[in-house]
Amino acid sequence: MNEYSSKLLEAAVNELSRLPGIGKKSALRLALFILHEEPSYAENLGKAISKMRKEIVFCKRCNNISDTELCDICANPKRDENTLCVVEDIRDVLAIENTAQYNGLYHVLGGLINPIENIGPNDLNINHLLNRLNTEDVNELILALPATVEGDTTNYYIYRLVRDFGVKVTMLARGVAIGDDLEYTDEITLGRSILNRQLFEDSIGKRE
Amino acid sequence: MNEYSSKLLEAAVNELSRLPGIGKKSALRLALFILHEEPSYAENLGKAISKMRKEIVFCKRCNNISDTELCDICANPKRDENTLCVVEDIRDVLAIENTAQYNGLYHVLGGLINPIENIGPNDLNINHLLNRLNTEDVNELILALPATVEGDTTNYYIYRLVRDFGVKVTMLARGVAIGDDLEYTDEITLGRSILNRQLFEDSIGKRE
Repeated sequence: MNEYSSKLLEAAVNELSRLPGIGKKSALRLALFILHEEPSYAENLGKAISKMRKEIVFCKRCNNISDTELCDICANPKRDENTLCVVEDIRDVLAIENTAQYNGLYHVLGGLINPIENIGPNDLNINHLLNRLNTEDVNELILALPATVEGDTTNYYIYRLVRDFGVKVTMLARGVAIGDDLEYTDEITLGRSILNRQLFEDSIGKRE
Repeated sequence: MNEYSSKLLEAAVNELSRLPGIGKKSALRLALFILHEEPSYAENLGKAISKMRKEIVFCKRCNNISDTELCDICANPKRDENTLCVVEDIRDVLAIENTAQYNGLYHVLGGLINPIENIGPNDLNINHLLNRLNTEDVNELILALPATVEGDTTNYYIYRLVRDFGVKVTMLARGVAIGDDLEYTDEITLGRSILNRQLFEDSIGKRE
């Protein structure tokens, strides 16, 4: 007997369980949910997935996910073209856009240098970034990669490549998160935030 | 600007986030994973989902999920046709089959009586069960519904309907789970397992 008493169910469970964080049991739960919904849902879900994969493009300027050759941000004439923010992937673009504190352009790397997972600089859009620095009028490059070992490594690798371009290179401020108690802040963050303390007036000005 | 900078991505995220336990953030993570996999994966996943929903059937005898009119269990002449095990859904069939301790047939209810979610006896395959008791040669009906309020309610509802059919009605043994410490067993389970204590010889016999 087939493990799921149906080859169709088994095929769906197998494909669903390849998704990150979804094991065989969760995949079965999802498949049964789909079976109990109206037929149009399975149809829409299946089509949305394959259509997205087939038709989505990456913006030729910033490499962000897009429906058109140039993404909405790059195509927006109101954005500040002199500032580039380097991020790992589209989720970081969404997170920064949600703050409504940034009006420049982005450059999506598509990953981080990670020797353990065999991801080297050539797997990322770093050459594309250097091309942009050569051809576009960039004054400031913001390195907005995650505060992890891989993020720091990639930050430093990019910094070494771009420091001779005459571009101001900045990175996201590291410090105590707003709303955090000092006693629950980890020592490295707290130590760094004492070393890199800010002028009180600056801090007030920046918050408003 | 579109929230996800792509309508295609947005559509996939919206459909994925309808799945149980998957919020917008997880759905975006799944969609980005699919985008980074080879194109054939999205194609296979999409097809497996819609094909399953379109072509899967429910066994006309036991209502289990199946690729054919009669499921593999019902079609197997080696199964004991005199014993029926009533379960909530296919996951319970899989769980019981995995124990390799049961050789009878099943009857899948497709849910439990749940007034809060507006699920009454007519939404379940209970009439179908009564038909089977009338037409098939059933000696024992095992109520194997979950040990929850809804499971107990449905157990009792079915028991009231079938007790005059001259069929032996049994239910799963409730008690301390094998491997559990008594101090961590909840009071109701422990209390019931004292009241319904078993002969030691029976317990040894049944385990082997």
